Amino acid sequence: MQLPIAVKETERATLQNQVFEQIRVMIAEGRLKDGDPLPATRELSLQMGISCNTALLAYERLISEGYVYTKPYVGTFVSDNLHDRIAPRLVDGQDAPQSESCQLLSLNDAQRLRQFVRIHSLQNPHRKRLSADFWVGRPDPASFPVKVWSQHIWKQLQRSSAALTQYNEPSGLEALRLAISDHLGPARGIAVDAGQIMIVGGCQDGFNLIARLLVSPGTPLVIENPCYQGAAYVFESFGAEPYPVTVDEHGMDVSQLPDVSSPVAYLTPSHQYPMGATLSLSRRMELLAWADKHDAYILEDDYDSDFRFTGAPLTALKGLDRNDRVVYMGTFSKSMGPGLRLGYIVLPKALVAPARRLKALMNNGQSWLEQAAMADFMFEGGFRRHLRRMRQTYLERRDVLLAALKSNFGDCQVRGEDAGMHLTWRIPDRYPHAEEIERLAVLEGVGVYALSTGAALQFGTTEESRRYLVLGYAALTPREIEQGIARLAECLSKHAIPSPPG
Amino acid sequence: MQLPIAVKETERATLQNQVFEQIRVMIAEGRLKDGDPLPATRELSLQMGISCNTALLAYERLISEGYVYTKPYVGTFVSDNLHDRIAPRLVDGQDAPQSESCQLLSLNDAQRLRQFVRIHSLQNPHRKRLSADFWVGRPDPASFPVKVWSQHIWKQLQRSSAALTQYNEPSGLEALRLAISDHLGPARGIAVDAGQIMIVGGCQDGFNLIARLLVSPGTPLVIENPCYQGAAYVFESFGAEPYPVTVDEHGMDVSQLPDVSSPVAYLTPSHQYPMGATLSLSRRMELLAWADKHDAYILEDDYDSDFRFTGAPLTALKGLDRNDRVVYMGTFSKSMGPGLRLGYIVLPKALVAPARRLKALMNNGQSWLEQAAMADFMFEGGFRRHLRRMRQTYLERRDVLLAALKSNFGDCQVRGEDAGMHLTWRIPDRYPHAEEIERLAVLEGVGVYALSTGAALQFGTTEESRRYLVLGYAALTPREIEQGIARLAECLSKHAIPSPPG
Repeated sequence: MQLPIAVKETERATLQNQVFEQIRVMIAEGRLKDGDPLPATRELSLQMGISCNTALLAYERLISEGYVYTKPYVGTFVSDNLHDRIAPRLVDGQDAPQSESCQLLSLNDAQRLRQFVRIHSLQNPHRKRLSADFWVGRPDPASFPVKVWSQHIWKQLQRSSAALTQYNEPSGLEALRLAISDHLGPARGIAVDAGQIMIVGGCQDGFNLIARLLVSPGTPLVIENPCYQGAAYVFESFGAEPYPVTVDEHGMDVSQLPDVSSPVAYLTPSHQYPMGATLSLSRRMELLAWADKHDAYILEDDYDSDFRFTGAPLTALKGLDRNDRVVYMGTFSKSMGPGLRLGYIVLPKALVAPARRLKALMNNGQSWLEQAAMADFMFEGGFRRHLRRMRQTYLERRDVLLAALKSNFGDCQVRGEDAGMHLTWRIPDRYPHAEEIERLAVLEGVGVYALSTGAALQFGTTEESRRYLVLGYAALTPREIEQGIARLAECLSKHAIPSPPG
Repeated sequence: MQLPIAVKETERATLQNQVFEQIRVMIAEGRLKDGDPLPATRELSLQMGISCNTALLAYERLISEGYVYTKPYVGTFVSDNLHDRIAPRLVDGQDAPQSESCQLLSLNDAQRLRQFVRIHSLQNPHRKRLSADFWVGRPDPASFPVKVWSQHIWKQLQRSSAALTQYNEPSGLEALRLAISDHLGPARGIAVDAGQIMIVGGCQDGFNLIARLLVSPGTPLVIENPCYQGAAYVFESFGAEPYPVTVDEHGMDVSQLPDVSSPVAYLTPSHQYPMGATLSLSRRMELLAWADKHDAYILEDDYDSDFRFTGAPLTALKGLDRNDRVVYMGTFSKSMGPGLRLGYIVLPKALVAPARRLKALMNNGQSWLEQAAMADFMFEGGFRRHLRRMRQTYLERRDVLLAALKSNFGDCQVRGEDAGMHLTWRIPDRYPHAEEIERLAVLEGVGVYALSTGAALQFGTTEESRRYLVLGYAALTPREIEQGIARLAECLSKHAIPSPPG
């Protein structure tokens, strides 16, 4: 079998990346389908006039990113159900089945559209109402301070509605940038001028801004493994070449940082997504030294560190950053809600002007009303009080979850419980792997998530990585948490492998 | 003199574009400075081993886009004041001088950042308060329906604030998409399912979406000449290759449409920006036939057609589009205000699913509150009433402007007065050219704008194209309009060239 692909020595992308990318596109476009065999690497290398090693490296990347899999002694095949993973899964029921919408594309369109981006999951992918849904990243809907928020909104509208009829500063409302710079000092140890802060439409808009600013095809992207899908897929869409670095209980293993020139590093040092580790101080310092040496920019995604339950708040990487190499990103999606579409970036001085131009080119900035209300909310102390209240609420829910896990499953290996809105639970060995548990639990009305379903991307799935479930607890009441875990235990008890007599 | 540039035969971009792009980047990065000479085309062609014709074509594009200029018999030089044009000019006073912020960049950064995007002007570039500012694209601040709007906002917040704590559908709120599809039928002759409508963060977000979907480096972009900067610069940033087509009093001259394969065409058929022409029906049909033949997608930017003063509303191109080749784009920035950051796109069926994925990847959609309030405002008939009222207001202001021009300058050559919020005035021959008038008027506190300052991009400035001023009138009271034009006349009377006797 021959694949219709060709590589060019002179292209900027390496040969292995050209092979990888062309096969990836053929899969994404459906020209290679579920279960289709790929040629053997030897065959491919002969056909294309490349070395066996190049073909092998390209296949390894396809395998590690989950596009294909290998059956030992049989061959390499396109992964099953890939369409579901490439297809959107954001809103239940709204979407036409992917296969149908794909058929609407002429071949010409399919070749031409830069459409086959992968997207992150933002809602649980099961099209079913769940009685307890441990989906990640959702703040508690009942705790939104709707009364106070409505008052701020009203006040701003009455006071300065003329701002609605103007183009406002693309970097964001001055008042909000000031309020954020006031907040970041005490909360995160970041001393920064409001001029270095840019308001973005949530982290996702921020990822695009940073990727467009810093990434060209082939730019090395150092990234946690596993990592957050939403960021990884944006960098992927701009052609970054990923260098995955393993995460352990102290966060990204900095001893694996690659020796590459002018890379971008993306990480979640405060509460690693999805595993929950906090990057240790010594690793933070090593990472910064590495960035200096390799002329790297670091994107620090601090998505949920407003909620820290144990110990003092950690100084952000940005707070340790003497040479202005760190881009810090925060969001109001977790502390307030994603419906606001508000986040912010702290920019190194060198990037302030270019980022502002790019932001104007991308979307002329965010809507005025949410920015104005948020600034007011922060200045009047409401945001600080809200955070304090939410921290207490989430701490209680976390404790309920930990207690429920313990009472139903005995001693539990849990990670990432010191902060945030989710934790990661290593499934006891007597139970099936995470994807299977997820499937069984959903049948019983309980949503628990394997890493890959839970908005995480893994480079190279291992047996160990299939032993983890992510459990978001912020949006569930204590009662829902207790009942959900009890029901999960009941469901799993039917599927436990009996331990050998001993 | 030698430029450190090199081209590759195998690259996807044509040789002339490689030369163009590399010189453009050297200028943008400041490696070639104001007034620096370029090598003669013959010299360049020898140095690089390309044909003289290739070098010539590259230079022609640099000239036509304003990067360099030619002094006959002397040579080709980098244009002056280019930094101001590449630099942002959005908000008075907020920006550090460009040269300063540039010095913060190390050479390494400057080479690496994809920062040198050009951006559109959204506010008048003169850092001075003007007593009458005919800047374009501003709705009347005093007419914003703040009372009714506040009520809708309040109602939505009380009713469904839980939406603030969720990720909502990235294509936009279902209710708003329904309201827009109801509006587009009678208003624009477009019969469309709500599922084909996507809510975007104003046109600028929409331009990026369409460009990322349809443009790769080298994709032919058919574009009006002159055209709207905001769109052109986005397509430029994704590597589109522009094919400018001249605009006359019937809109884009379709006889000039190029014979290229799979292009994207961007135009403003209802009220050409900046010249104001309406694309005639016969040209619309020719354009659609051309699109069928060349497998083109057409982006129809209908930025201000809510305000049509003469004749019935025209059927949009999208309403004539039998083969689903037209992407239609509308905005609430003109009818309500840019501070809402709300616009919408009507997508061909084939693009619905890919666009939705890309929108999620780009920014997870728009903020919920404005969408919910806008949907409510539309369903309850408030938007229709608001449009009717604004149309009357803007019609009066237009008439005051036409009368003021006539009484101060005699018979006037005016274009684009049938619709929208601005018109174009051809300056009588006895006065200096537009840039000079702009400069003189600003000294007297009156803002009038040459095409290039007024957010328009010209490919190849001619003497004729320097005879036009764009005058936005929507945000000025009748009194301000009358006084502004009177003051302009007084100012210009000192600078008129006396007509020859006889």
